[in-house]
Amino acid sequence: MNTPRHTVRRAAERADYDPATVHAIVDDAWLCHVAFIDHPSDPPTDQDDAFPVSIPMACWRVDDRIYIHGSNGSRLVKRLAGGAPVCLSITHLDGLVLARSAYSHSMNYRSVVVFGRFEVVPDADKASILDAFMDHIAPGRRQVARPADVNELKSTTVLGLSLREASAKVRTGGPKDKEDDLNLPVWAGVLPMREQHLPPLAEAACASWPLPDHLTGWGH
Amino acid sequence: MNTPRHTVRRAAERADYDPATVHAIVDDAWLCHVAFIDHPSDPPTDQDDAFPVSIPMACWRVDDRIYIHGSNGSRLVKRLAGGAPVCLSITHLDGLVLARSAYSHSMNYRSVVVFGRFEVVPDADKASILDAFMDHIAPGRRQVARPADVNELKSTTVLGLSLREASAKVRTGGPKDKEDDLNLPVWAGVLPMREQHLPPLAEAACASWPLPDHLTGWGH
Repeated sequence: MNTPRHTVRRAAERADYDPATVHAIVDDAWLCHVAFIDHPSDPPTDQDDAFPVSIPMACWRVDDRIYIHGSNGSRLVKRLAGGAPVCLSITHLDGLVLARSAYSHSMNYRSVVVFGRFEVVPDADKASILDAFMDHIAPGRRQVARPADVNELKSTTVLGLSLREASAKVRTGGPKDKEDDLNLPVWAGVLPMREQHLPPLAEAACASWPLPDHLTGWGH
Repeated sequence: MNTPRHTVRRAAERADYDPATVHAIVDDAWLCHVAFIDHPSDPPTDQDDAFPVSIPMACWRVDDRIYIHGSNGSRLVKRLAGGAPVCLSITHLDGLVLARSAYSHSMNYRSVVVFGRFEVVPDADKASILDAFMDHIAPGRRQVARPADVNELKSTTVLGLSLREASAKVRTGGPKDKEDDLNLPVWAGVLPMREQHLPPLAEAACASWPLPDHLTGWGH
């Protein structure tokens, strides 16, 4: 059931609460923006001094949760591990939509906005959730890279956010000009864009090595 | 001079406060995420109920300000026009950085985070600031598209945010493995990515038209 804050108000015809839609948009992302509330002093002395902070973070999904990770000592990790309310957003831009009138120009995009509070992943689950991160970045790589050791795991906090309060918003297709503008002699359509993967760039030390199997799908 | 909140704390060696760096990252963006603080009730009855909201918005720069626009009636426009504190963030992902150990994996990116409060662009300046938006989207297009009429301009609020409290953060280059890992037999390097522009897609009504001059640079 929708909560009031994750119910899309603007252009509500573009809203989609289907987990399959939300998951697909999240899975296409390497990064999200995580917004939380901060104060000039900690603990806050005056609620009126509160200001929002929005930071890009690497992200990945397992089941119905989205995960981020960070160093134990970071401000973001400390705030979020403490249960601060957050808004996490992801946006993929698919095209610029050129209408016959300036006013009707638009963009094609797929976005997800999630409200909630992160929870710290318990130590017992940390390694498997981080494995899923590696599988997201480059499937097959965790079988060859050196796994995190005990100290590396200890210094890292992994945080998970339920997708229960998530909404997707998607615009596709061409411009929607006003009726009176349709006969203007102005080219109308879409300038499409997408994420392009370029061929892997090896470090000098492995420049002569064959590309490992788990990377042959990238940039070809 | 830096204010405490826009001074980068994590990986501070990647921070850059040079306006030229900030401007270049902003100018490469079509979208930003704008975070502000909202409350379940308006006016707020309990500050403890505050939660952050982060929404993707089209953006463009003129001089040392970044602009967004929206319908007068939207929640975001109402909050921001009222002078709410915001955090605006932009992130371009340039590559996945694959290290020999799982722990040392990273990402190459260019990001900007701006703190401040938006100001409403006065009516007298609105048309010229919106012209700059069109020049950002497709230079040359505002000379051919129908300009906004009085009612369209009236229904749109344009908001500008100073870049004074902006910081950039940039990571480039290959992985930084720990000394002990350098001889592991694991391929290390970067999986580069970028925004790709695909050929323009005309609406059916102009499918047989030649592509206008102002679009020939896109997707070729």
